[in-house]
Amino acid sequence: MSESFGERVRSALHARGPLCVGIDPHAALLDSWGLSGDARGVREFGLRTVEAAAGRVSIVKPQVSFFERFGSQGIAALEDVLAAARAAGLLVIADAKRGDIGSTMDDYARAWLTPGSSLEADALTVNPFLGVGALDGAFALAAQHGKGLFVLAATSNPEAAALQRSTNLAGATVSASIMSEVSARNAEASLAGEWGSFGFVIGATVAWDEAGISSFTPQAPILAPGFGAQGATPADLRPRFGAMADAVIASESRSILSAGPGDLADVVAARAAEYLEVAGV
Amino acid sequence: MSESFGERVRSALHARGPLCVGIDPHAALLDSWGLSGDARGVREFGLRTVEAAAGRVSIVKPQVSFFERFGSQGIAALEDVLAAARAAGLLVIADAKRGDIGSTMDDYARAWLTPGSSLEADALTVNPFLGVGALDGAFALAAQHGKGLFVLAATSNPEAAALQRSTNLAGATVSASIMSEVSARNAEASLAGEWGSFGFVIGATVAWDEAGISSFTPQAPILAPGFGAQGATPADLRPRFGAMADAVIASESRSILSAGPGDLADVVAARAAEYLEVAGV
Repeated sequence: MSESFGERVRSALHARGPLCVGIDPHAALLDSWGLSGDARGVREFGLRTVEAAAGRVSIVKPQVSFFERFGSQGIAALEDVLAAARAAGLLVIADAKRGDIGSTMDDYARAWLTPGSSLEADALTVNPFLGVGALDGAFALAAQHGKGLFVLAATSNPEAAALQRSTNLAGATVSASIMSEVSARNAEASLAGEWGSFGFVIGATVAWDEAGISSFTPQAPILAPGFGAQGATPADLRPRFGAMADAVIASESRSILSAGPGDLADVVAARAAEYLEVAGV
Repeated sequence: MSESFGERVRSALHARGPLCVGIDPHAALLDSWGLSGDARGVREFGLRTVEAAAGRVSIVKPQVSFFERFGSQGIAALEDVLAAARAAGLLVIADAKRGDIGSTMDDYARAWLTPGSSLEADALTVNPFLGVGALDGAFALAAQHGKGLFVLAATSNPEAAALQRSTNLAGATVSASIMSEVSARNAEASLAGEWGSFGFVIGATVAWDEAGISSFTPQAPILAPGFGAQGATPADLRPRFGAMADAVIASESRSILSAGPGDLADVVAARAAEYLEVAGV
């Protein structure tokens, strides 16, 4: 049995701090990097970002849609990027936000989390709209292979509030219910004194009280987009996440990637150092 | 400006009735069809299903996860299946349940709905967990190209009820809110006396009153999985969907596909005739 994903994240955060470099080959960025707007361009963009991230941060997060945009060729490019990242010792979170039921969901999990799959990553972001229970096959498959899942819980985009803050009969918000259901699935890890492998996506600028959510146990990683271009800074990490700050993976994309390929490694190193200072690991 | 997706669905249902053949190359089905459990197998499975569906039904729905399972090669197989289906005059709904925000969501929409994209389909299923407003770029892109979206609204899997029946401050369920927000985006079609191009995924076995949903306007297509293996029959179409029955796309997969490649065309034809009888178009 391989080390659990939760424990691998704990070590990764301890080693190089919370910064996670998003691999987002957005059309405008491809253009400013002087790369073509096609599968060749996203491949090159991804490989250069991996090179800049390796040894400077522990975690990268490729955004799947920017590769899927170019069909099977874009997905083949992503496979190369995933392989390069894992070969460089980076933990890879595939940001695909997949969500479905039963055997359909299971095949998404198999695609992204089976050792030896061409799309193998260390963790996958998933969407709980069909119920946390619909993800149980994916939880089981992830646990079996030492992989992780990040369940969308509370996002910071304004359009999401109405749905995610709707309440059940007991008065819990959708976000809170998801976190409690997923936490129950981390209970086994807790008994072993480990971090859970099933984490959450919680936007860096989400107001926890407004979202109806609060600190949770067992400890499990929080993937927090919204640092950088969306407004949160390294200094916000502790005030915003309080007791949970040590579990935060702070994801930045555009703010770092806009440096361009030449300066990317330096920008990554400098930004990682800023986070390390406040993270106090 | 091409004919709208909503109008194309209306014509399609009128021409050959509500049956939609799901293209679900599940591992067990590949095996029973004597096909290999790899990209070659899913390609062959998809092409044979398209052949059996062409001229017998109007609509097919490939389930993306079963192709994505095999990475870029599986996606390349899906591209061949999508192209074959569209060349055969079938309306193709890519069942990918994508959902994200901003430019990330836009690129999913571009991948599946841009004319000339290798993954071009006629419509895409999408997940509204990040808010219906987060899909606005996708709505705009679909409208521009005469394409459609099916927004997950009320699914019949038991794990989904707690989330989808949570309520907002006005007492509307998540499902009802989604339907009202999406319907507002069909308003323009309504003025033109057309069907909306932004439809809903509503399970065939969902109890509408329990889900807190009711008949909606403007008219827009309802993609209804749950016919066949999951228990609903052609005779259930009118009792279950009432006034909305004429807008239902009844999706069946396993119940038809388990016939095997040899008998598939006959089974599709027979089942389509059963639906036509009750649909009364």
